[in-house]
Amino acid sequence: MRNKRSFAVIGGDLRQVKLIKSLVVDGYHVSVLGFNNVEIGIEVSNGQTIEEAVQDVDYIIAPLPCTVDDTTVNAPFCDEPICYKELFKCISDKQLLIGGKISEKIMNLAKIYNVFPIDYFDREELIVLNTIPTAEGAIQIAMEELPITLHNSRCLVLGFGRIGKVLSKMLAGIGAKVTVEARKHSDIAWVKSYGYQGIYLYEIGNYIGKFDIIFNTIPKVMLDQQTLSKISKECLVIDLASKPGGVDFEMARNLGVKAIWALSLPGKVASDTAGEIIKDTILNMIEELGV
Amino acid sequence: MRNKRSFAVIGGDLRQVKLIKSLVVDGYHVSVLGFNNVEIGIEVSNGQTIEEAVQDVDYIIAPLPCTVDDTTVNAPFCDEPICYKELFKCISDKQLLIGGKISEKIMNLAKIYNVFPIDYFDREELIVLNTIPTAEGAIQIAMEELPITLHNSRCLVLGFGRIGKVLSKMLAGIGAKVTVEARKHSDIAWVKSYGYQGIYLYEIGNYIGKFDIIFNTIPKVMLDQQTLSKISKECLVIDLASKPGGVDFEMARNLGVKAIWALSLPGKVASDTAGEIIKDTILNMIEELGV
Amino acid sequence: MRNKRSFAVIGGDLRQVKLIKSLVVDGYHVSVLGFNNVEIGIEVSNGQTIEEAVQDVDYIIAPLPCTVDDTTVNAPFCDEPICYKELFKCISDKQLLIGGKISEKIMNLAKIYNVFPIDYFDREELIVLNTIPTAEGAIQIAMEELPITLHNSRCLVLGFGRIGKVLSKMLAGIGAKVTVEARKHSDIAWVKSYGYQGIYLYEIGNYIGKFDIIFNTIPKVMLDQQTLSKISKECLVIDLASKPGGVDFEMARNLGVKAIWALSLPGKVASDTAGEIIKDTILNMIEELGV
Amino acid sequence: MRNKRSFAVIGGDLRQVKLIKSLVVDGYHVSVLGFNNVEIGIEVSNGQTIEEAVQDVDYIIAPLPCTVDDTTVNAPFCDEPICYKELFKCISDKQLLIGGKISEKIMNLAKIYNVFPIDYFDREELIVLNTIPTAEGAIQIAMEELPITLHNSRCLVLGFGRIGKVLSKMLAGIGAKVTVEARKHSDIAWVKSYGYQGIYLYEIGNYIGKFDIIFNTIPKVMLDQQTLSKISKECLVIDLASKPGGVDFEMARNLGVKAIWALSLPGKVASDTAGEIIKDTILNMIEELGV
Repeated sequence: MRNKRSFAVIGGDLRQVKLIKSLVVDGYHVSVLGFNNVEIGIEVSNGQTIEEAVQDVDYIIAPLPCTVDDTTVNAPFCDEPICYKELFKCISDKQLLIGGKISEKIMNLAKIYNVFPIDYFDREELIVLNTIPTAEGAIQIAMEELPITLHNSRCLVLGFGRIGKVLSKMLAGIGAKVTVEARKHSDIAWVKSYGYQGIYLYEIGNYIGKFDIIFNTIPKVMLDQQTLSKISKECLVIDLASKPGGVDFEMARNLGVKAIWALSLPGKVASDTAGEIIKDTILNMIEELGV
Repeated sequence: MRNKRSFAVIGGDLRQVKLIKSLVVDGYHVSVLGFNNVEIGIEVSNGQTIEEAVQDVDYIIAPLPCTVDDTTVNAPFCDEPICYKELFKCISDKQLLIGGKISEKIMNLAKIYNVFPIDYFDREELIVLNTIPTAEGAIQIAMEELPITLHNSRCLVLGFGRIGKVLSKMLAGIGAKVTVEARKHSDIAWVKSYGYQGIYLYEIGNYIGKFDIIFNTIPKVMLDQQTLSKISKECLVIDLASKPGGVDFEMARNLGVKAIWALSLPGKVASDTAGEIIKDTILNMIEELGV
Repeated sequence: MRNKRSFAVIGGDLRQVKLIKSLVVDGYHVSVLGFNNVEIGIEVSNGQTIEEAVQDVDYIIAPLPCTVDDTTVNAPFCDEPICYKELFKCISDKQLLIGGKISEKIMNLAKIYNVFPIDYFDREELIVLNTIPTAEGAIQIAMEELPITLHNSRCLVLGFGRIGKVLSKMLAGIGAKVTVEARKHSDIAWVKSYGYQGIYLYEIGNYIGKFDIIFNTIPKVMLDQQTLSKISKECLVIDLASKPGGVDFEMARNLGVKAIWALSLPGKVASDTAGEIIKDTILNMIEELGV
Repeated sequence: MRNKRSFAVIGGDLRQVKLIKSLVVDGYHVSVLGFNNVEIGIEVSNGQTIEEAVQDVDYIIAPLPCTVDDTTVNAPFCDEPICYKELFKCISDKQLLIGGKISEKIMNLAKIYNVFPIDYFDREELIVLNTIPTAEGAIQIAMEELPITLHNSRCLVLGFGRIGKVLSKMLAGIGAKVTVEARKHSDIAWVKSYGYQGIYLYEIGNYIGKFDIIFNTIPKVMLDQQTLSKISKECLVIDLASKPGGVDFEMARNLGVKAIWALSLPGKVASDTAGEIIKDTILNMIEELGV
């Protein structure tokens, strides 16, 4: 890491609180804005204004997601809105703004002010590491909702992408009987090499009735009326796929199948871990870009 | 199994509801008493009186624990008390009463009526199988309480008895870094052979400060003032030991250490699994005893 | 599978013997050529000539690798050479030749005879499934060569591609302490998510001295003089990478580092499994191509 | 450890060579006798006579097993016999002899000379830790003998004692499908809690035909004519039980079942690990006894 060592963290949830603490522990100088209603638990220079907060720092960190209204910083621990417009005005061309899931509108607005933010949300290591709290969150939900143990339960994981891989491993680690659905011969080969039962998409109708829990990881409606109607009434469906999700939820309700759409788990179930992941990713980016 | 095939299930919680369903699915005749306020979800002969319920059955199943007041059957789904005295009057010498955790008073009362109950609670296979929902329950609590993932967390398990063994395996299966405390060289040898870090009791003071979660399984105060004072403030202590427990809880509160005493987890977190375990154990007993 | 159900298996080692048996067990008609000196252990029509063998079959299976001299079929169990030229002459345009690792010369020769072979060696599922016998073979070699148990040994796996993934999992499954070297942040993220220690390529010099076994999977000289000179004299190096391999073997000898280049393990350590993999792959190809 | 810090190691195989090296590395003074034909690879005072070797040391270590002829020390790396009688004459009442598997005759002989040896072979931690090289040795044999991978193979482990537990875990860790035979309900409960398939002894006849490998750990003839006759001809039987073993080997030969009696694996497959285990055990004994 070069000698740049100061950050301003503007807004965010408990993940950013952890990020702040962890940066300070690592020895960085950190100023913050937008955390009035939360105890950070560590000494930081808590700027009163945007100007004070970003003055002289090298990097400005926006939260994940960086906005929910395309106008202000996503800052749930702050009563006063922090407008991106005002923020951009305070950023000089020697400072770098790093944000998560930056929307097109915010990105365009930034350009007007000659600010060129970079995004940590699409970094591969963040996506990979976030599969861990996502998988644990899914397991926690299954434990809370079901009157059976995961140990010895029959679990189906739809999809063997990043989340599918980590979730299957954890389920097997707890003692569940894991079956994974995939489409390609080579994916089924991987599924077998990891010791799970593999079934092809086209076979799913023959097997779907025998599972206690079904986890979907594919962002495409996998569980439609036809498939849902074959699922056991005691089965729990947990959908981890981003929009449009993998379950026809209305149909599930009609058929009496319990289905839960569990999104954004890392921040919800393991904010500290998720905050550490953001921090590591940002430091990787800074190092790689040499900025 | 001989030809005896009928059961009366008298009282109990959701575990017994599952037991009833599962016995019916297995083809046994089952009559029940004490489940007015719960939907069993399967057709059973729901006796109105004790006499009707136990008439002609081979086995009468009392719940776990069989009583909480040393007088009536533990029947949370029933408004009317069911007195053991009345129950014993209706049991003939050709019928066998099988109960869980039968208190000394109830045992003595039974003898007066020439009833000689047997207890399923101290059966080794029930104790072993119950470690599974116990361990999962402990993991669920840790997931709910902590802002970090269990994956990569540093866990200490105090004791390598039944629960310690199963819990360590599950924790490692999720990806936690597991250390186990034991006393004997041979237990530490076992700990190592399973791939965990092993520490001796006498070393505990040197290491206890570096864990994120501490699970106690030893029914003896392991975490007293001296040890508690060395624990990290962000650490969670989960005590799984039966009375007197392994934690000085008052001292923990004073020192700001978060400690949870988690008892009777199987019935709470996985009633169906726990009910199946009771059923299997009772069927084993019947088969073994040839009664 | 369509109605085509007959195969001619021409040449090959024990993997093809298993392939023959397995096809017969599956109900296919199989004729063979080139297995005079081995007991197949099952009834097949053992053609005396190429013509007899391939007559009327739908698919002709060449071995893996299909040739070692660019002229004849690789047929170690046969004294008489089987020339590809003669084979091609007997193949009609309604028959399909499926071979493994078909050389450019053979491919060109085939075209002259209007034969258009397809290759099963570069199929992703075969490559993936072959990592399993490769990893087991590497483990077997380590067990044979070292006076220590793999359990609790410190293993370094260079590379986290297909073989690296499966090998790491097996090593950890036996109880080894697994460290994986990778280059990219996202690969290190994967390494961590699977629970192994991860080190970056550039750090390797700092750590390489502390391992008991080093497995290389990267087809590039990873262990050169500088790195080899830091390796413990009791360490075993097993190179699984295809040419040029990952070890400067001459330098290793000079420095007294024991290094083994272990190639083509599937056929050597688990010919039956490897034969089954070839069979499954060929059947997948036939089904997919609709040929 | 008290201040006693010197050892004489008299005879033994490669395990004792490792023991010597490891004691020296730990900082103990070590003199040796009976290692003329092997390179120890470390500086030790190599006594020419028994007197020189044992003079002034605190502990005299005899090998495992300590004798094979009830007269001399088991010293395969020495041409000259070392008689226990001579050894005992040189041991004062301030010195302690620690040996492995001390026979009754040697024990009696010792008493005559007022020597009271203690045995490290029956220490629980040594027995437990030796299960690791034993299990790995069994896996190595299976890998060497079979043309299939252990991954995905169907393995039966007879007995769920110490070796059964460690072997099952390693097999599952490599990806084998593990079934364990046990007798008691509570053992089957353990088997299930570890995630293996469990079968009762009385069911064995129904299942034994479907396994690829059978490992016996029970020192009682489990595989007699009746059972052997049901085993697949491609199955490999590995008997790890001490005398009388668990297999009717003559019958196995007659029936064409391949069966291997694999004894004393730790010293054979992992002498360094086995030597470390002996060292750790001896140091534990010294510490515990306060001698």
